[in-house]
Amino acid sequence: MNPPGKKVVSEETRFWSAVASVPSILPEWLERAAARLDSLTKPPGSLGRLEEIAKRLVGIRQETWPRCAAKAIFTMAADHGVTEERVSAYPKEVTRQMVLNFLSQGAAINVLCRHAGIDVIVVDIGVDGDFPGSSGLIGRKVARGTRNMAREAAMSNAELCAALNAGLDLAEMAAKEGRTLIGTGEMGIGNTTSASAITAALTGCAVATVTGRGTGLDDQSRNHKVKVIETALAVNQPQKSDPLDILRKVGGLEIAGLTGLIVGAATRRIPVVIDGFISTSAAAIACAIEPKIKEFIFAGHRSSEPGHRVLLDFIGQRPLLDLEMRLGEGTGAALAMTIIESAAKIMSEMATFASAGVAGAVS
Amino acid sequence: MNPPGKKVVSEETRFWSAVASVPSILPEWLERAAARLDSLTKPPGSLGRLEEIAKRLVGIRQETWPRCAAKAIFTMAADHGVTEERVSAYPKEVTRQMVLNFLSQGAAINVLCRHAGIDVIVVDIGVDGDFPGSSGLIGRKVARGTRNMAREAAMSNAELCAALNAGLDLAEMAAKEGRTLIGTGEMGIGNTTSASAITAALTGCAVATVTGRGTGLDDQSRNHKVKVIETALAVNQPQKSDPLDILRKVGGLEIAGLTGLIVGAATRRIPVVIDGFISTSAAAIACAIEPKIKEFIFAGHRSSEPGHRVLLDFIGQRPLLDLEMRLGEGTGAALAMTIIESAAKIMSEMATFASAGVAGAVS
Repeated sequence: MNPPGKKVVSEETRFWSAVASVPSILPEWLERAAARLDSLTKPPGSLGRLEEIAKRLVGIRQETWPRCAAKAIFTMAADHGVTEERVSAYPKEVTRQMVLNFLSQGAAINVLCRHAGIDVIVVDIGVDGDFPGSSGLIGRKVARGTRNMAREAAMSNAELCAALNAGLDLAEMAAKEGRTLIGTGEMGIGNTTSASAITAALTGCAVATVTGRGTGLDDQSRNHKVKVIETALAVNQPQKSDPLDILRKVGGLEIAGLTGLIVGAATRRIPVVIDGFISTSAAAIACAIEPKIKEFIFAGHRSSEPGHRVLLDFIGQRPLLDLEMRLGEGTGAALAMTIIESAAKIMSEMATFASAGVAGAVS
Repeated sequence: MNPPGKKVVSEETRFWSAVASVPSILPEWLERAAARLDSLTKPPGSLGRLEEIAKRLVGIRQETWPRCAAKAIFTMAADHGVTEERVSAYPKEVTRQMVLNFLSQGAAINVLCRHAGIDVIVVDIGVDGDFPGSSGLIGRKVARGTRNMAREAAMSNAELCAALNAGLDLAEMAAKEGRTLIGTGEMGIGNTTSASAITAALTGCAVATVTGRGTGLDDQSRNHKVKVIETALAVNQPQKSDPLDILRKVGGLEIAGLTGLIVGAATRRIPVVIDGFISTSAAAIACAIEPKIKEFIFAGHRSSEPGHRVLLDFIGQRPLLDLEMRLGEGTGAALAMTIIESAAKIMSEMATFASAGVAGAVS
């Protein structure tokens, strides 16, 4: 057995070698996709962002006719020590209760994924509770929640590395299962507090401008949440130039797990649809570490959390949907995945001007 | 046989009695839907516009758990005499060629509908061409295209009434087939010219602000298109206060058919997802005649045609998608229908706080 110190080093090494192996998108694949799109029976460019998606899929997958049929959303659940500071409208027990709801197929993410033919993969990466006898849950519990970031760092380095590596493992599993499109989702009472703290630390924006009502705080409670985040940043002093330092000190286990998943997906050329504010905070950490990862990400939707806009700008993504949703779980990603799959099918299933005998534009 | 004059009167009577029978949405159904939504395992309102859609579906269908499984898009095709004025980047033969492409399942609308489980119903309501031996086409040809609106009225009153009634017939067919969600689509080289003319006449906006590039005109050709529309409005003098006068003089047979379809769907409490600029011009005529029809319409997407924004404001609809599409055929409606169906499933398939044993917000 390795001594704990050595194990941590090797787990960190694994993460950094994954980061180093993120591939580049080659322009020739994008050009090939553009030529194909212009041969299809529609005015050039008239399918708008569907064409942009189709091109990006071709570049990511390095396939002329990318397929998105094998779809999954990874919904990672964890608790947050900062809930001690009463930053959420809901008690923290709801994290565990909602995991059970996911497993019995009753949550919004289950309904939306069933509708779109997406598998929901539920991961316990840090819930403060047990799931005896529950089937269908992937158990990767790193800890029973994070520590209270308003008093100390949310995670130890070992915990951070374990969560990142759980994400890498899940990306490996996705690749082995032949997944061609994955999405990120999360459940964790208190996790908009983490996402706002990450956003402020990573972008330099004021806490008040990137902090919203979460699951439904009133003005007074939301102002209290701002103060708690300001305290957490003052106590921990996360380094803007060190995204993993930010993630460890004010992040969450599910956020770290998603960061690992996103990095791992990029290394395997699996496109990732990110969901709302919390998922995007995980993606922003990944992109801050390795900007090439931006090319593998599709922003599913724009959440009504104010910090989400800031993070989407940070990672240079325009969301596909803007339906004023703020539920998380992966719900925005689930809706967007059907649009992305549509774009893939446009590439492979539409007739060309030549094959259909349709005249082109008058020159 | 009725003399032509009498027939026209009776067809007009049929349209106006359909308009008179459009029902109202009862607030108690919306309240019932809101109560159900707040009992589901999610923070109140957190599914944003999905909740708004779900409420509207309940109100339209007068069912607590509306179903959207039996979906169809009606793609109506017709030619436009105004193509003589060279207002399109494509030759008018493309209308007929694209209908054949629809029938052989090779167009974008076929791909998107197949993906989302939507039937495409292709209607020849005025194509200047024949379809011998083509199966799957609904033949309701009123004329071989409209007249050139830059010189005279696009339709006679008899033609207008025949097209409106073809739409009413299709709505009746949809009801008989048990359709619970329908969409509008169209194909007609030159029909953005008609839609821009309708928009200018109906809203009073300047032609130049509501006229775009259609399938891809350059600046010079687009300026020519503006002049042609200005001429058509000057020649025909459509009455702002008389939407059917506008439709007859500067509309198209497919636009009139869609107006009839939308009116007929509203009378049968079938929600209608409208597509882009041309479909919305048909909806705007219907809503100008009977504002209650607005309640039965979902705007699928925002097209990149500049006049579309103006029309969406006119009918008081916020589009569900904004993907910079400008293809027509019903493509934007097809993508939006899957979101609307998702919203319906949220109502019927999600667990409640009570059934899932999830704690509510801390009071």
